Amino acid sequence: MLKEILANKENYQPGLSIDCVIFGFHDNQLKVLLIKTKYSDKWALPGGFVRVDESIDDGAVNVLKGRTGLQGIFLRQFATFGQAKRNPVEFSDGVLAFYQIPLVEGQWYRNRFVTVGYYALVDFLQAVPQPEGNNEIVEWIDCNAVPELILDHKEIFDKALETLRMELNLVPVGYNLLPEKFTIPELQRLYETILGRKLDRRNFLRKITSIGILTKLDEKKSNVAHKAPNLYSFDKERYEEVLKIGLHQGW
Amino acid sequence: MLKEILANKENYQPGLSIDCVIFGFHDNQLKVLLIKTKYSDKWALPGGFVRVDESIDDGAVNVLKGRTGLQGIFLRQFATFGQAKRNPVEFSDGVLAFYQIPLVEGQWYRNRFVTVGYYALVDFLQAVPQPEGNNEIVEWIDCNAVPELILDHKEIFDKALETLRMELNLVPVGYNLLPEKFTIPELQRLYETILGRKLDRRNFLRKITSIGILTKLDEKKSNVAHKAPNLYSFDKERYEEVLKIGLHQGW
Repeated sequence: MLKEILANKENYQPGLSIDCVIFGFHDNQLKVLLIKTKYSDKWALPGGFVRVDESIDDGAVNVLKGRTGLQGIFLRQFATFGQAKRNPVEFSDGVLAFYQIPLVEGQWYRNRFVTVGYYALVDFLQAVPQPEGNNEIVEWIDCNAVPELILDHKEIFDKALETLRMELNLVPVGYNLLPEKFTIPELQRLYETILGRKLDRRNFLRKITSIGILTKLDEKKSNVAHKAPNLYSFDKERYEEVLKIGLHQGW
Repeated sequence: MLKEILANKENYQPGLSIDCVIFGFHDNQLKVLLIKTKYSDKWALPGGFVRVDESIDDGAVNVLKGRTGLQGIFLRQFATFGQAKRNPVEFSDGVLAFYQIPLVEGQWYRNRFVTVGYYALVDFLQAVPQPEGNNEIVEWIDCNAVPELILDHKEIFDKALETLRMELNLVPVGYNLLPEKFTIPELQRLYETILGRKLDRRNFLRKITSIGILTKLDEKKSNVAHKAPNLYSFDKERYEEVLKIGLHQGW
């Protein structure tokens, strides 16, 4: 892969890469999609390079597809990382050595790369990586047990998680992450899982219902021992509307 | 300037630029710092290139200083722009022709540039551009009367303004933009000016006081015909704290 890119390096944006932080939720677990690198003991975010003739947004979609086989995921740009020595030349040289690429051929890869971060939140049971070609190990790993990552990938992951948590204050989440019919406690656990902390039940109920995105169904959850909780669904039209205008009309 | 950069292009990050959207507030006016380009009838955001040995954040500070003489302004990265043809080669060739640089010497500049956007909000009376060297025309221009801009600079400006308005929901503003002692109506007009719309007086009063960043002074505004309004100042300690934790503790 790197060899092919180096052979066609004039087609790629120099000194620029893409890194994707794909969060996966299911059943009160928040995971992140990581790749086991072949050239080191550490894991990495799925990343890659952008062609000079494609937008960075399209580049991000293609990088994710190329490295993990995942398609149709809506990626949001969240930050660009450009520390002076974010990819030390020792690191690049190690990768080149692993792929048996002579330094002179790998010069393009030895420069400083600025990387644009993209993130997404999906249901990890609906987004099963099917690597095409290079058979990398791609895994959903619990966000509370992220192993050591290459370069500044931990910083990129942390910033993405911070952005995701901040976004909870601005836009609703849950659509496509919960079953069609769900209970308020299930929705609360989704929020708690993303935030990494417990929420007050009454406060949550008050705030979430005030947004007006929930439809109370004339049904209770079955298979529950005592006091069956009510089922809800998202009012899709209103949900889309709130996505656009934001949760806080603010001032 | 461009000539010097091209002569030392190996010291600059290829295909990457910085653009700064510096908003200036004073006396209920919101302005933006623009540069009158020499090579076209259009105006531009102050922008430039990043050295390979500096971080993009430091690069942004240096670009702003180099183009406008402004220093000590806290810049926040807000988005990166990378459409496939965001800087058409016809544009680059026009600039090279203006500076009488042969195409073969200007090859570096003819490629697609991805640009990282930074923004800031300052008091435009406190931030007077003192161009060093190349004597560009740098002006504070009303945000409601932005002239035609080069390339995708209008899109970058719009995104920065959208981000600034969104940030009003997340962090307090006003410190360093209002006199030390101010009235609630003055603070409300600051918010209205940034948002570009009127706010309900009672709602604003309720929300702004609930944050707890204001200290009500034992003083009334003088030189006011009737019913003098109370004066307030920011509780700096609490203001800094809220800046850190955010306005909405959210869920």
